[in-house]
Amino acid sequence: MARLGILAGGGALPVALHAAHPDAFVVTFAGVAHQMGDAAPAFPFEKIGSLYGALRDSGVTDVVFAGALSRPPLDPEQFDPAMIALAPRLLAAMQRGDDAILRLVVETFEAEGFTVRGAHELLPGLTAKAGLFAGPEPTDADTQDAKRGFEILRETAPLDIGQGCVVAQGLCLGFETLQGTDAMLRFVAQTPDRLRARARGGVLVKTPKAGQDLRVDMPAVGPDTLRGAAAAGLNGVVITAGNVVVLEPAKLKAVAEELNLFLLVEGTAP
Amino acid sequence: MARLGILAGGGALPVALHAAHPDAFVVTFAGVAHQMGDAAPAFPFEKIGSLYGALRDSGVTDVVFAGALSRPPLDPEQFDPAMIALAPRLLAAMQRGDDAILRLVVETFEAEGFTVRGAHELLPGLTAKAGLFAGPEPTDADTQDAKRGFEILRETAPLDIGQGCVVAQGLCLGFETLQGTDAMLRFVAQTPDRLRARARGGVLVKTPKAGQDLRVDMPAVGPDTLRGAAAAGLNGVVITAGNVVVLEPAKLKAVAEELNLFLLVEGTAP
Repeated sequence: MARLGILAGGGALPVALHAAHPDAFVVTFAGVAHQMGDAAPAFPFEKIGSLYGALRDSGVTDVVFAGALSRPPLDPEQFDPAMIALAPRLLAAMQRGDDAILRLVVETFEAEGFTVRGAHELLPGLTAKAGLFAGPEPTDADTQDAKRGFEILRETAPLDIGQGCVVAQGLCLGFETLQGTDAMLRFVAQTPDRLRARARGGVLVKTPKAGQDLRVDMPAVGPDTLRGAAAAGLNGVVITAGNVVVLEPAKLKAVAEELNLFLLVEGTAP
Repeated sequence: MARLGILAGGGALPVALHAAHPDAFVVTFAGVAHQMGDAAPAFPFEKIGSLYGALRDSGVTDVVFAGALSRPPLDPEQFDPAMIALAPRLLAAMQRGDDAILRLVVETFEAEGFTVRGAHELLPGLTAKAGLFAGPEPTDADTQDAKRGFEILRETAPLDIGQGCVVAQGLCLGFETLQGTDAMLRFVAQTPDRLRARARGGVLVKTPKAGQDLRVDMPAVGPDTLRGAAAAGLNGVVITAGNVVVLEPAKLKAVAEELNLFLLVEGTAP
């Protein structure tokens, strides 16, 4: 019989997951902030072998990574044999970036016999269904801009650069890079008026890259995304159904009304 | 026998073109700043028919557009018949952006029987030959970053977004959009240290989009590009031979030495 293990980092997501799966076994990590209370055992990253053991002893078959994991400094003298064995590949992955680290973590847990699940599978309310999620109806121009945005993200997906872009009247005003969505929106907000005069309004489009492993890396939008989009002079935000996390949906809806911005959810990336 | 007409906007380029082609017929535009002196006739945009006439009367067969052309407000009451005939297509082009306007201008002059030439054909020193143009030798990491940058620009060229990007240790830190290269470099300069820690150094790569009409739209780099690249923490700038304007080459070389940044020119986009 399957039992879930929640490997909890910071933020509200692991708390929500635990509420939906109260019989799950929750672990946290030494040196990583979390909101899971004191009952959950905290494992040092250096002793990953003892984590495997604890999960198995508790009957855990499936694991989910949830919440923000900062990277505390590792003390090599504390490494257990499993961590020593992992170290060379971990070192190589760290030089290639977050994606590589996440892929390695997934592979490592799978090699230990665990099934790695995505938070969005275990908490369907985490993402949105197709339709207008919040705010006013998009105009035809907004719909055209969204279509162009999805085209840009689809064509650039193999390059593994980013999962968001801003399009206004067909013109690309922002393309997400390593710095993330909020930084891109701040950049768009600084667009000179003379350029904005021929690229008014516009939308933020956000969807996973093809091949992105949603179990450990999902795009997300929340109230702050809408605020950033409003500050950038956009009319709305467009995401895809089932694969983009919608953070604090009630607050997001209120912010959408307040700012008169829409959050539109496309059934499939057009 | 061919005679050149220089259609001069602002900046040093039309001056340099005239120095290289002293027998050319120079025209300027009413309301557009230029450095061509008072001898050159100034035509209002509203009377494009009279411009065609003056060019033909002077024996002009080939024209070159050179220098920055701001767009003064057009007065429809002053339109001559040629401009009235052009107006509907010009209006449509203005809604599609600068590229569309430039394409229309080229088509219009070609339809009038003129050969439209590129400034880079008439002034070979405007662009650079393959090799290290200025500054220190790039490292292997820089060369790898340049390769990735060219890959990104090649794959995104059909999307007609931008002609420059920044790559550091394989990670894309900036992708040029409507706001241009300098704005992108300012964006990269604001990258948080925690991200820069795993994407140190890096290069700006700049090359025309496939299909870009170099006769009216060329990428350019100059001393300010190097200063922007330095402020963004980059190691250098990489362009392609023959199709990227190098502004103020002597000053650029001095700035490259001062900032210890390279300008590398690739023979063909790798």
